[in-house]
Amino acid sequence: MKESKGPASSAWDALTAGAVEIVDRQHLKARIERGDRLRVKLGLDPTRPDLHLGHTIALRAMRRFEDQGHTGVLIVGDWTARIGDPSGQNVTRPQLTREEVSAAADTYLNQLWKILDESRTEVRFQSEWFDRMRLDEVVRLMSQTTVARMLARDDFARRQEQRRPIGLHEFLYPLLQGYDSVAVKADLELGGTDQTFNLLVGRDLQQAAGQPAQDVMTLPLLEGLDGVQKMSKSLDNYIGIDEDPKDMFWKAMAVPDSLIVRYLELATDAGPAEVRAAREALAAGTNPRDVKKDLARRLVRLYHGAPAADAAEAAFLQSADLPERVLGASVRTMAELFLELGLVSSKSEMRRLVEQKGLFVDDRPVASADESIEPRTGMVARRGKRQAVTLRVQ
Amino acid sequence: MKESKGPASSAWDALTAGAVEIVDRQHLKARIERGDRLRVKLGLDPTRPDLHLGHTIALRAMRRFEDQGHTGVLIVGDWTARIGDPSGQNVTRPQLTREEVSAAADTYLNQLWKILDESRTEVRFQSEWFDRMRLDEVVRLMSQTTVARMLARDDFARRQEQRRPIGLHEFLYPLLQGYDSVAVKADLELGGTDQTFNLLVGRDLQQAAGQPAQDVMTLPLLEGLDGVQKMSKSLDNYIGIDEDPKDMFWKAMAVPDSLIVRYLELATDAGPAEVRAAREALAAGTNPRDVKKDLARRLVRLYHGAPAADAAEAAFLQSADLPERVLGASVRTMAELFLELGLVSSKSEMRRLVEQKGLFVDDRPVASADESIEPRTGMVARRGKRQAVTLRVQ
Repeated sequence: MKESKGPASSAWDALTAGAVEIVDRQHLKARIERGDRLRVKLGLDPTRPDLHLGHTIALRAMRRFEDQGHTGVLIVGDWTARIGDPSGQNVTRPQLTREEVSAAADTYLNQLWKILDESRTEVRFQSEWFDRMRLDEVVRLMSQTTVARMLARDDFARRQEQRRPIGLHEFLYPLLQGYDSVAVKADLELGGTDQTFNLLVGRDLQQAAGQPAQDVMTLPLLEGLDGVQKMSKSLDNYIGIDEDPKDMFWKAMAVPDSLIVRYLELATDAGPAEVRAAREALAAGTNPRDVKKDLARRLVRLYHGAPAADAAEAAFLQSADLPERVLGASVRTMAELFLELGLVSSKSEMRRLVEQKGLFVDDRPVASADESIEPRTGMVARRGKRQAVTLRVQ
Repeated sequence: MKESKGPASSAWDALTAGAVEIVDRQHLKARIERGDRLRVKLGLDPTRPDLHLGHTIALRAMRRFEDQGHTGVLIVGDWTARIGDPSGQNVTRPQLTREEVSAAADTYLNQLWKILDESRTEVRFQSEWFDRMRLDEVVRLMSQTTVARMLARDDFARRQEQRRPIGLHEFLYPLLQGYDSVAVKADLELGGTDQTFNLLVGRDLQQAAGQPAQDVMTLPLLEGLDGVQKMSKSLDNYIGIDEDPKDMFWKAMAVPDSLIVRYLELATDAGPAEVRAAREALAAGTNPRDVKKDLARRLVRLYHGAPAADAAEAAFLQSADLPERVLGASVRTMAELFLELGLVSSKSEMRRLVEQKGLFVDDRPVASADESIEPRTGMVARRGKRQAVTLRVQ
């Protein structure tokens, strides 16, 4: 007998697509099916100024809730960012200043509306409740858990075993993140699988505060361009959602073949049928480069629109036909770059050509021989109309 | 060659009499010898309303500093009392309310001046600095130590090993106590040997705050009347300094023989020669009861003056000649007590004698047969002038 799938059931399927774990699944499903309007919490720590594809998995899940009429409650972790999330870390993170965090939060917020529906999103800063939190409340919060419970976390347990120091303040991180759920009365919290412990602390603290415990939905972590580590700014293995279309396209073309399908599935709007088709095409021997072009187009279209995707693809194809030069990543002057590439033969020729506006980087004329430049893969350096090379940075 | 003992050196001997450990001994000695005026910190948590002899060891040490012109800085631990000192504990202590702590602090302060010199004592409440302490300062404090360092404490290590829960807030206790030293700029902190860890945290936090690290002097813990456990209100094995002279005398007479010399040495004004004489007398076979009478007289004299000591001794001797009755400690009515003691034969006789004001407890006439009474050792119950018994509670 086939299970009947009403609209409520397919709403459930759409909302939970890609979820790794749901606690309490039955409770959440019942609420969705009876049409409750939920407050769906997601916390982001503004430790660095840009959102990248790794962030978008939970953000896009939140958007699906918003599209079904729920309220997204985005917590800007301007306090926890200062402490540093110990989740999955081997070492104590440096503590950020209030200014660093505030600057990062500004750019985060500008980038959020590429994914979330602003009209259905409530943006809340932790500073609303933590700026005025006093010692007695901290004592009360801390008394609601035990040292053993904290040390049961994988990351802390490993650090303790390896005798790597755990700063006492790191124990505060899950408590503060959990307290956010109390402060905003969350019904559901989304987060990466590495956040499971923290999300469950939210349930405990809500119950201790006399609130119903939030449900929790964890989502997969996206590997970075290195194919191994979780995507993160600090590892420089990321694709930022605010990167310019051409950089984004080039970076997508650098995704390891083994992760093409995963990126399509987790980070783009490709539906299940399209993902399956890509998987089958690769298995059947299609050149991965062709499937990656589809991935790259989809990503650029999502964050910059279709025309930008067309232009980025055209630029990619054009430069892909150019001879490639491998060089180091360090910052240098334009003169040094063009000499290294062999596009000019001397500094005096360099200066002359700059004056004549005859040298270009990515179709922008070089204004000075002494200007600094940081080479990036996919960048095109050109002399006049005929001589051009594309760079590959190693 | 004999070491010459100038006045500075004998000042040092007087100040450090009985000290178990001094950190940094050379530093402290040099400061005393060059005549520095020190701020000598001692923290007392007002968890219960009375001071007992256990508290007096550090308080009397502080008084010796005051007598030499130093400033005693007495910290009323109205915050740490609420958290509960985990030092030497097997289990998480119950957290007290602000009101309970405040009530206990009131009686503490009244009793302090039996020992300290009010004109040389600065009384500071932790609430002066902790009431306004905010989360960011808590994070900063916590980041100055590690989980491993906390778990290295004997008591925490033992609890962890035995899988007894350690509340996360208990880790705050040493940090707050240590922060007190920063707040009052302590030069020296006194405390029982069970406080060693906490006192050393004060050194660390002062250095982190750019202050010179305080020196630390630990003092012995006094065993209670059970002869085994540390004296404490919660174990009911204490002699309170505010107890009435008769109770104090009786309790002193209940000190185990093995501890007579220790009580004389730690809790009275007996000098080294007198302590030695007591030790030798006991070794030579003197009845311990006689040495205890000297201990009891000294204690009552210290806290109530010589006439009270005379009266308490006289009452003791008188009641000591009376027949003794052993009975349980539970609260009962006067009628139940006098019937149990066989001083009345019926309830009607009881009522008649009460009306005639012919029954007494400790020379106070019994006002009602239904009045409640909690029997205590040494209490005298009397009928008329002739019939009387002394109680021993088991």
